[in-house]
Amino acid sequence: MKMKMRVMNQEPFNAETPNQYLRSWITANRVFFARNQGQIPEKPIPLSDWSLTIEGEVNKPLVLDFDQICRMPKAIVSNTLECSGNSRSLFEKKASGNPWTIGGVGNAVWGGVWLRELLESAGPKANAHHVAFEGLDKPLGSAKIQFIRSIPIEKAMSSSLLAYEMNGEPLPLKHGYPLRALALGWTGANCVKWLHKIIVLDRPFEGFYMDKVYRKFQQGQDPKTGEVVTGINLKSIITQPDKSEILEAGRVTVLGAAYAGESSVERVEISVDDGKAWNPATFIGPNEPYAWRQWQFLWSVKEKGEYTLLSRATDVEGNQQPINANWNVLGYGNNGIREHAVTIQIS
Amino acid sequence: MKMKMRVMNQEPFNAETPNQYLRSWITANRVFFARNQGQIPEKPIPLSDWSLTIEGEVNKPLVLDFDQICRMPKAIVSNTLECSGNSRSLFEKKASGNPWTIGGVGNAVWGGVWLRELLESAGPKANAHHVAFEGLDKPLGSAKIQFIRSIPIEKAMSSSLLAYEMNGEPLPLKHGYPLRALALGWTGANCVKWLHKIIVLDRPFEGFYMDKVYRKFQQGQDPKTGEVVTGINLKSIITQPDKSEILEAGRVTVLGAAYAGESSVERVEISVDDGKAWNPATFIGPNEPYAWRQWQFLWSVKEKGEYTLLSRATDVEGNQQPINANWNVLGYGNNGIREHAVTIQIS
Repeated sequence: MKMKMRVMNQEPFNAETPNQYLRSWITANRVFFARNQGQIPEKPIPLSDWSLTIEGEVNKPLVLDFDQICRMPKAIVSNTLECSGNSRSLFEKKASGNPWTIGGVGNAVWGGVWLRELLESAGPKANAHHVAFEGLDKPLGSAKIQFIRSIPIEKAMSSSLLAYEMNGEPLPLKHGYPLRALALGWTGANCVKWLHKIIVLDRPFEGFYMDKVYRKFQQGQDPKTGEVVTGINLKSIITQPDKSEILEAGRVTVLGAAYAGESSVERVEISVDDGKAWNPATFIGPNEPYAWRQWQFLWSVKEKGEYTLLSRATDVEGNQQPINANWNVLGYGNNGIREHAVTIQIS
Repeated sequence: MKMKMRVMNQEPFNAETPNQYLRSWITANRVFFARNQGQIPEKPIPLSDWSLTIEGEVNKPLVLDFDQICRMPKAIVSNTLECSGNSRSLFEKKASGNPWTIGGVGNAVWGGVWLRELLESAGPKANAHHVAFEGLDKPLGSAKIQFIRSIPIEKAMSSSLLAYEMNGEPLPLKHGYPLRALALGWTGANCVKWLHKIIVLDRPFEGFYMDKVYRKFQQGQDPKTGEVVTGINLKSIITQPDKSEILEAGRVTVLGAAYAGESSVERVEISVDDGKAWNPATFIGPNEPYAWRQWQFLWSVKEKGEYTLLSRATDVEGNQQPINANWNVLGYGNNGIREHAVTIQIS
């Protein structure tokens, strides 16, 4: 019953979740994808040494200990988290960065406090426009740049969590123990781990991880002029059968997931004939805001041969998953429809 | 980040979940309550040695291997499981059995197949009335009686799962690897672990675990004439603050859970004055069939002193959690309102 991840780097630790663990509504903590820029703290910080500071453009800066945070009103929220660069390797044109396939995504039920509650206690000033998060991970590389990201104060006040619990467990060390930010429906880069400082700013934070990366830009374009990666794109993935699997003719159970960031998935359709006909998939499992839907399609297949399965999600606003996502230099936001070839042999 | 259970016995292994892990919607597998009659298999059975047999009053007996089951249409269902004897120790009059407090309950998202699908493949005969489950746990004690339980075929066909996945992980050994039954909304005794045989019967299975225990009976009454323990009773529990905790005056976050078996919880109310006034609690977290609701109540308390907190659940049919549950010899189904004393001291 060992559960293994697909590890891309050890330092920083970057690993994706294999297909078979994407078939449940809950993604187990021990195989939940991990993407880091810095070095994960070697061991959990003693809670007596930890505090959360809220400073900057606020009327009343705060320093809170862990117990104070746990005694605040609790929020429990399901949220699907996706790495900004998930499915980068599936762009036809090569993009720079870790070669994620489809496993840079997972769904968990998080426990914590609404960021709004803390910000309201601190009292943002009228010029407060962005909220920056600083973690305790150690910067790697020669430049030693701390991973700091900021999000607009509207997002921070409306739908952002500080999570200390993940799937009923204390937040694992690998996922930000003791506290991480979660901008619900936004990509992982906006959800700083090992959080210890929140800085309220009158403008977006300026720094490497805001200006040079996590932006969509083209060759020759100044990264800083590119669109910042925020919300998770509408997307569906096929998780069973495995790609290139050889199957027997008959009834084949096709499984997958679909997600839409801050929006909700309305339907998923499957094609087994290269996109000529589309058949509805059926949702299975919980239906909760910000969380993916698991779906299945019972495929009745009689003829042997090579088949390409396609899945396509539509959200509640009627937006449809594109055939091809817009390529960009760093390969962010690839939600294009993926060709999923399988072979059927007569049993 | 160690997570410990409250262990009552090592053989058979019986352990309950401490309060602090009942505060999440997901109960983590490693602290999920365990109640056994037999001995847990020492190691996971190799899947190549395992099969599931369906026999008895069926037209076409079946033997399925694990891969065949995983290739069937998948069901993903959240389900709160409670031990039949949970809260036994909270009856005023002593009842026989393990001294569960409130932690013989937990909520998980399970993956598996609908039992209906398998039964339909086997074709129950017209005289099929009950479905018995046999596990691979080794009987303990001198009598060596295998733990076998049966449920009515209506329950088996309408809302019973065979689960191979628990919270995104393969079903842990302690919880029935590789497969367990789950009669949704019914107590743990109806959900046989390490399942390897299903026997369709023309009447309820007869045996120790059907006739002598898991029935509600009084002193001097023949156990067999007592009501069988099936559905989980309507109940609410307080999980924070801890019982007997000393707190500072001010705003106190009271957390808890409420569940209703096959029904749904409509509301939870809290009293801080021994039941004179009842205040509404707020639900937090997912709302899914068969799963508990997590709730919270923000208690503003100014006066120091001893307080008794009470929580009371009401289901969608208007049934209310009783002040005292009906006592029975083996102490099943205790859903009475629990007095939860705390001390407030001026800070």
